[in-house]
Amino acid sequence: MRILMVFLALVATQSALAAPRGKAAPAASKPRVSAATQECLDCHADATPGIVAEWRASRHAGVTVAEALARTPLERRVSVAAAPEGTGAVVVGCAECHAARPDAHPDSFDHEGHRVHTVVSPPDCASCHPVEAGEFDQNIMSRAYGNLMGNPLFKDMSDQVLGIAAFDPARMTMTMTAPAGDAQADSCLSCHGTIVQVTGTTVRHTDVGDLTFPVLSNWPNQGVGRMNPDGSRGACSACHTRHAFSIAVARSAETCATCHKGPDVPAYAVWSVSKHGTIVKANSDKWDMTKVPWTVGNDFTAPTCAACHASLVVAPGGAVIAPRTHRMNDRLPWRLFGLPYSHPHPVSPDTTILRTAGGLPLPTDLDGTLSPGLIDAAEQGRRTAALQKVCRACHGQGWIDGHFARLQSTLREADAQTLAATGVVRQAWARGLAKGPGKGSIFDEPIERSWVEGWLFYGNSTRFASAMAGADYGTFANGRWMLAKNLRDMMEWLADRLSPARR
Amino acid sequence: MRILMVFLALVATQSALAAPRGKAAPAASKPRVSAATQECLDCHADATPGIVAEWRASRHAGVTVAEALARTPLERRVSVAAAPEGTGAVVVGCAECHAARPDAHPDSFDHEGHRVHTVVSPPDCASCHPVEAGEFDQNIMSRAYGNLMGNPLFKDMSDQVLGIAAFDPARMTMTMTAPAGDAQADSCLSCHGTIVQVTGTTVRHTDVGDLTFPVLSNWPNQGVGRMNPDGSRGACSACHTRHAFSIAVARSAETCATCHKGPDVPAYAVWSVSKHGTIVKANSDKWDMTKVPWTVGNDFTAPTCAACHASLVVAPGGAVIAPRTHRMNDRLPWRLFGLPYSHPHPVSPDTTILRTAGGLPLPTDLDGTLSPGLIDAAEQGRRTAALQKVCRACHGQGWIDGHFARLQSTLREADAQTLAATGVVRQAWARGLAKGPGKGSIFDEPIERSWVEGWLFYGNSTRFASAMAGADYGTFANGRWMLAKNLRDMMEWLADRLSPARR
Amino acid sequence: MRILMVFLALVATQSALAAPRGKAAPAASKPRVSAATQECLDCHADATPGIVAEWRASRHAGVTVAEALARTPLERRVSVAAAPEGTGAVVVGCAECHAARPDAHPDSFDHEGHRVHTVVSPPDCASCHPVEAGEFDQNIMSRAYGNLMGNPLFKDMSDQVLGIAAFDPARMTMTMTAPAGDAQADSCLSCHGTIVQVTGTTVRHTDVGDLTFPVLSNWPNQGVGRMNPDGSRGACSACHTRHAFSIAVARSAETCATCHKGPDVPAYAVWSVSKHGTIVKANSDKWDMTKVPWTVGNDFTAPTCAACHASLVVAPGGAVIAPRTHRMNDRLPWRLFGLPYSHPHPVSPDTTILRTAGGLPLPTDLDGTLSPGLIDAAEQGRRTAALQKVCRACHGQGWIDGHFARLQSTLREADAQTLAATGVVRQAWARGLAKGPGKGSIFDEPIERSWVEGWLFYGNSTRFASAMAGADYGTFANGRWMLAKNLRDMMEWLADRLSPARR
Repeated sequence: MRILMVFLALVATQSALAAPRGKAAPAASKPRVSAATQECLDCHADATPGIVAEWRASRHAGVTVAEALARTPLERRVSVAAAPEGTGAVVVGCAECHAARPDAHPDSFDHEGHRVHTVVSPPDCASCHPVEAGEFDQNIMSRAYGNLMGNPLFKDMSDQVLGIAAFDPARMTMTMTAPAGDAQADSCLSCHGTIVQVTGTTVRHTDVGDLTFPVLSNWPNQGVGRMNPDGSRGACSACHTRHAFSIAVARSAETCATCHKGPDVPAYAVWSVSKHGTIVKANSDKWDMTKVPWTVGNDFTAPTCAACHASLVVAPGGAVIAPRTHRMNDRLPWRLFGLPYSHPHPVSPDTTILRTAGGLPLPTDLDGTLSPGLIDAAEQGRRTAALQKVCRACHGQGWIDGHFARLQSTLREADAQTLAATGVVRQAWARGLAKGPGKGSIFDEPIERSWVEGWLFYGNSTRFASAMAGADYGTFANGRWMLAKNLRDMMEWLADRLSPARR
Repeated sequence: MRILMVFLALVATQSALAAPRGKAAPAASKPRVSAATQECLDCHADATPGIVAEWRASRHAGVTVAEALARTPLERRVSVAAAPEGTGAVVVGCAECHAARPDAHPDSFDHEGHRVHTVVSPPDCASCHPVEAGEFDQNIMSRAYGNLMGNPLFKDMSDQVLGIAAFDPARMTMTMTAPAGDAQADSCLSCHGTIVQVTGTTVRHTDVGDLTFPVLSNWPNQGVGRMNPDGSRGACSACHTRHAFSIAVARSAETCATCHKGPDVPAYAVWSVSKHGTIVKANSDKWDMTKVPWTVGNDFTAPTCAACHASLVVAPGGAVIAPRTHRMNDRLPWRLFGLPYSHPHPVSPDTTILRTAGGLPLPTDLDGTLSPGLIDAAEQGRRTAALQKVCRACHGQGWIDGHFARLQSTLREADAQTLAATGVVRQAWARGLAKGPGKGSIFDEPIERSWVEGWLFYGNSTRFASAMAGADYGTFANGRWMLAKNLRDMMEWLADRLSPARR
Repeated sequence: MRILMVFLALVATQSALAAPRGKAAPAASKPRVSAATQECLDCHADATPGIVAEWRASRHAGVTVAEALARTPLERRVSVAAAPEGTGAVVVGCAECHAARPDAHPDSFDHEGHRVHTVVSPPDCASCHPVEAGEFDQNIMSRAYGNLMGNPLFKDMSDQVLGIAAFDPARMTMTMTAPAGDAQADSCLSCHGTIVQVTGTTVRHTDVGDLTFPVLSNWPNQGVGRMNPDGSRGACSACHTRHAFSIAVARSAETCATCHKGPDVPAYAVWSVSKHGTIVKANSDKWDMTKVPWTVGNDFTAPTCAACHASLVVAPGGAVIAPRTHRMNDRLPWRLFGLPYSHPHPVSPDTTILRTAGGLPLPTDLDGTLSPGLIDAAEQGRRTAALQKVCRACHGQGWIDGHFARLQSTLREADAQTLAATGVVRQAWARGLAKGPGKGSIFDEPIERSWVEGWLFYGNSTRFASAMAGADYGTFANGRWMLAKNLRDMMEWLADRLSPARR
């Protein structure tokens, strides 16, 4: 019989490994849902069966806060010191999030005897994950709405992209209508986040009778910089998607690709042709993308975005290689995203406070001079060291030194090409071939749009391809070939417009 | 010993779950192949070993028609009332399809004692799947050949894309050769389907001696609108690919991407950056993509194309959320694909019958007016309700209402940008800057091609990105940025050509 | 108890199948590492834990050379006749590669009592895999560095892509700086390979004290044509990536995509929308991508790049369908990559020796005439037969004949469009509208860049889409639409420059 017991154990282990087809760990432990959550489930198992089933298979549904706190520090996924009052013995269900802090949420409404709110916000999550929420608040991503819409230059560029034109054939003119909120929510603000506010109430006929719901502006939105009804910023669900709250999803490169597939921020496109991406795509179905801590070599052998920039990564022996962080530039010395040139990361997540010497609300001036308010060399050094510690798990220092020296060279080159293109567009402005600053938008005329594509698409692609070793993307796909060609085309346009035949 | 039996059951279950490495379910039950199929297998296990092995691992090879009919209605994958005469006890093998209805197939030929045909057609599949074949016949996809080649405007556009140019340096002129059948089959008709007919016979030297085979025109082709030798339309194998007939393959978004990856119909590109795509890509290796019915939350937690538009989807309790359909626009109120503007779906799958008030064979006129022959608001409402029922499995009605209102706004905007671009090209025609209607193709000159890219690439991308919540694609990748830039470039070209310096 | 034993066997089998989550086969057999490798591991388990863990899970770590040699010929992954002196009883660890042939490696250095080198080269791998190393030496890829940088035309094109411009607004001129080594290494040479040489030494402070390391030029690099410090050519790690040496990774299409994603060589983009790619993406998590030999139908049912062009593929019965080769064009009659026209593969992997009748270092002249030094029709026939044998595993000969006839037609068409575009650019040169041959680079002016995009992007895309049956990519994405449009735009530019208004 002892052998039988061994079998039992083996078979049980097998089941745990092989079973997860839509259902994760919790099966064994009976769910201990709160009375309030049970009431939610009683109706919503019919009303929204998909998310109820998704939640049932989630870690939130299978682990109580007390159990989560009982893990070793490295294994712990919660950062609160002790279970919030009265929550220790229950799993994290519907009510624990959607009925949390009801008075703080203007979108709270009476719903079958409970006060619930639709938009779960970072402060709700902070009940159990306060450290992560605090880091995220210092993450530039949490300010994505304001950093875009509160910057007059960026706002103007968005307007030029989203504005709707009408053509008047009689006068041969085009008039532009400023973009509607829907257009913004459907493009820029899909990632940057919308302003979600309660604008009224509506009554819906449901299976359980007429019910009243709040009407939310600019909803739905899961942008990482969403402005929530409770006044908070951000959406944890931007990455920890929907009701699985799956760390595997957050760690997948595809999650980052939701906003970073390019051509403006081609991180995913570059990673896909890098060796990192290649190895992940060939192997990750056999890896453990859910473990905490995440052990390099055992759980995974090549990084997704999260491994380098966010996750708690340890060596097989347990030594910490990188701590968990939700301030994504903690391990990033350079901001590759040119505005219009690459630069050290801004100190503050609020980038609307930046001003160049020339008065522009940008991190770099048109001639490339850095603005005040960027991290200094010492801080860049600390972030470089933190990032390289992850590299060193698999690469020797000679490899790493060569890689980073090459990246610095590429940053200089892409910035130099941008400087040349900026010289061309400034000549166009100076010679009246385009209206430019003070006389109109600097983002609407063809030569201006070419200039934007130079730094926003081709310069960024060249830099990201270098940083993440995805040269195939940075050469012909959308990088150096296009960067050089676009610049030459701009030159040619300028020369043509200035030629005697055209004057 | 009773415990042992439980183990046996457990271990067996395990095997079934873990085993499928190239081989699926059927192993347990001895295949009961017909005598005719056995003869096929005897040679083809050597002649074409890959497809024989693929078939052996398929559901067709492991289940008899009688067994398929014994399933509960929701689980049933066949729609015939009773097994066709004499087929109930055998699995669906080579002969059951390739020797079916021999007299109906002009490509039937004598082959080692059997009359077989190469091109298995929807009426062959209809022996067991008549409902699906009937729905597919009403699916606009089944008319993809005629809808393209039988429409003089679309045919002309295809000719301009595929025609081969010769340049005469002496006269500085370019002459065009009309495209060959191979060029059509290698591009447009790869998806739209070719006309496959028997054009003769050929003798091939094989391991079993000289054999005679029919020669087929425009073969191979697996286009969804293929014109088969038997006079039928369509190819089930366009999605239920090759000899696995795998529902998992048909349900994969990659299958749809064969024809819908963009830039003209960028459904896959958009879905890939949507949260739906993100969740699928991170998790689907742990989901059950083969179950019938397909239970949301248990078998999968985010949709591929099939979940929203084709599959039988049920709630965990078994309630039907969406019935199976092979008329893909049953759950689609709007046709996002602008021709040149978005519009309600045509009533008939044969779109060659559409005529605008201006006499164009299009669903919308150049000024945006809808043609007769499109579904009315009531039918749009029914299709919207059917689609939203799928959304509601995971999303609240407030979310859904917001999403669809935003989509409608985006349709209006992309159509407005198209209207402005159409205004520009019409001016070019009116002022003799391009030949245009009545004087030449409307798809060959540069300004005309820019106009086409406006509605075919950028307008469609903007709309699809909105409909499927993949804003990253609809903003900079190929949507609103390009839509606005292209329009402005067209304007600039027009103004330049009309400037005094150029006249 | 006999039943128990059956269980044991079953459960053990299960474990083997289900276990590999980051750890592969070797667990059972105690690793038999050499003393030298053990010393490496003692430090590097801490110094570079990721690659040590990755190696521990690799086949190299679990199998001794003697065991590898004991396999049947078809199963064997080594091609050496007998184990190299003294290596038979140990697994292939750090020292077996990084301390091999120390005197042959200029980058060998004293490291904790061992002479080790960083850059493991094909001759090192040839200790156990001599046949593969020999084939690879005849693979055009192994000459990728010289074939690019040693060809004056290609080198000039690279310089035009990578050179950095400065704009002088006073003189309205642009000056170009020749690209730095970093720029080359970060783009073209990332795939083509850099020249890696020892340029000095450096002392690094490590956990075990100060250590001296060689400094390597143009490092890191994993380009397939890397010029190694030992004078050898190539990097096996370009495909057999990092310390897993995983055949599954080498067989994944994503590995080839590192360099062949497009737009210049869009093999991966095309395959992804082909039925082959669709089936692989939907199913490969259930396939065995590691088996040798690789049995079509059992281990996989649709090809990645490797199945058609490199792997040892057998039928279920064991009959060889295709032998293993590391000379990738063994099964390729045509070189689809136009320079500027498609052509039969060059005989020698060193393509710098090619000369057209007009004296260009190209396989085809500007008028399309083939250069000497290309394989003849008989050799093309042999390679066609070898490739089609793979096709025939799953496709009938009628299918195959149709497919290849269509491909030939497409090659002619894409070449004809290229000829027309070449005619236009030659007129531009003849009429002084661009400097061209003898007067400047032929790759820097806008009309010249358009011409390059014609054959390098759109011509290649059209051809690859045809060859690999991914028509969606070859139609609108980057193929025939762009090929025709680009040509017409070039014509229009020429006509405009020659118009009276412009003269």
